Amino acid sequence: MELIGERINGMFKDIREAILNKDPAAVEYWARRQTEKGAHWLDINTGPTVAKEEQPAVMEWLVQVAQSASPLPCCIDSTSPAAIEAGLKVHRGAALINSTTADQHKMDIYFPMAVKYGAKLVGLAMNDAGVPKDASARAALAMELVVNADMNGLPMTDLYIDPLALPANVAQDHGPEVIEAIRQIKMLSDPSPKTTMGLSNVSQRCNERHLLNRTYMVLCMAVGLDSCVCDVDDDALVDAAAAARVLLNKDIYCDAFIKTFRQR
Amino acid sequence: MELIGERINGMFKDIREAILNKDPAAVEYWARRQTEKGAHWLDINTGPTVAKEEQPAVMEWLVQVAQSASPLPCCIDSTSPAAIEAGLKVHRGAALINSTTADQHKMDIYFPMAVKYGAKLVGLAMNDAGVPKDASARAALAMELVVNADMNGLPMTDLYIDPLALPANVAQDHGPEVIEAIRQIKMLSDPSPKTTMGLSNVSQRCNERHLLNRTYMVLCMAVGLDSCVCDVDDDALVDAAAAARVLLNKDIYCDAFIKTFRQR
Repeated sequence: MELIGERINGMFKDIREAILNKDPAAVEYWARRQTEKGAHWLDINTGPTVAKEEQPAVMEWLVQVAQSASPLPCCIDSTSPAAIEAGLKVHRGAALINSTTADQHKMDIYFPMAVKYGAKLVGLAMNDAGVPKDASARAALAMELVVNADMNGLPMTDLYIDPLALPANVAQDHGPEVIEAIRQIKMLSDPSPKTTMGLSNVSQRCNERHLLNRTYMVLCMAVGLDSCVCDVDDDALVDAAAAARVLLNKDIYCDAFIKTFRQR
Repeated sequence: MELIGERINGMFKDIREAILNKDPAAVEYWARRQTEKGAHWLDINTGPTVAKEEQPAVMEWLVQVAQSASPLPCCIDSTSPAAIEAGLKVHRGAALINSTTADQHKMDIYFPMAVKYGAKLVGLAMNDAGVPKDASARAALAMELVVNADMNGLPMTDLYIDPLALPANVAQDHGPEVIEAIRQIKMLSDPSPKTTMGLSNVSQRCNERHLLNRTYMVLCMAVGLDSCVCDVDDDALVDAAAAARVLLNKDIYCDAFIKTFRQR
């Protein structure tokens, strides 16, 4: 289970202020903290308040500051291709681009970009028509992503398909559809693409957010969830990921399985 | 999710002493406490120390004491057909017999007994040859149970198939096989049989037992686990069951979903 720490995102006040003041302290803090807490990737997102023309420079700065404080690779998260490419140019090691949709005009930008920079790529199971409800419609869009990975020579295990979890209080019927979509996506090719999701979405504006987040992560791991963008500062979530890996026979059981998971 | 409270079992010291001293206090306490904590059934097991010839009388007493203190039905848990029948005779409402194996000589006892007493029946996916490792071999034994339910006129939704969870530290490779078995068992008939398991088995002699138990329950719920014998005094486990029900769209989301689950 690859945990992508969600905290370096301009939607959080401390990161927004770090960007405004060009003060690296909060970014460095969360880069170090999420690394200690068991993250495998650092999500980097300029957030909604940075003007479009400034996003490339801000992304470049955030990636450099984060990697100055942590050995982890970054998940470069933006809707702007220019911001993503700016991040990729300064990134050390293989990055994860977050994300393309299954629209051909976007896949034609991001798949070649991923290959050019030796990056991995998150593909969303949605297109200009929106997010489909049914599992099989999500899987059909995932197949578009799989085909484009193949056409562009992106290794299938470098494609991370996100079936798009939606909030349980407004789109509850999507919950089991996303689970079934993950199961189908893992069967689309051999080797199968990886799967991921923005986990915290599932509990937006709900009560008991931590409980809902970790429970949904485990439900999805049962059918093949390989990674998620999540709050790695939530110890119970990381513990649940460690336990699920052992119970799915993906990590060998040892008495210190929680500690072992965090140290990998 | 039907939670079967595991606590009235002679393997626990207070219940063993209650049996020895014919003192109903501990049995009454756990009947009430598990009811408050969200149990839907009370498992009743004389435990390993009661001599075979005394088991029917002890089971009869335990069932009567438990039902004097709680409105819940009992899961009458024994390897002795005489003890089970003694419990059924004094039970108020529809009981759950725990359990038959998939051996024909046992099914020939327990299926007619279930029908005679209007009880439901747990069927284990094992036989005299032992517990199979592969999911499909477990599902094949489950099919024997399904066929016998049909032949005996036991409604399919009154059959609870237990694929047999084993401890993660000694039989780790069984973990994902049991999950896949549940998924297959839910497709064996329409309507499908219910599924259950002795959840605490998965963490026998492991560290972090509560974490492993609740995580395995959620993994299994993703593919169709309908109930389990478990520690309902473990609040985090009951919370996880409530959250999983909401996320699987089986209970309607409301802000008080944890409280609502416990009050049903």
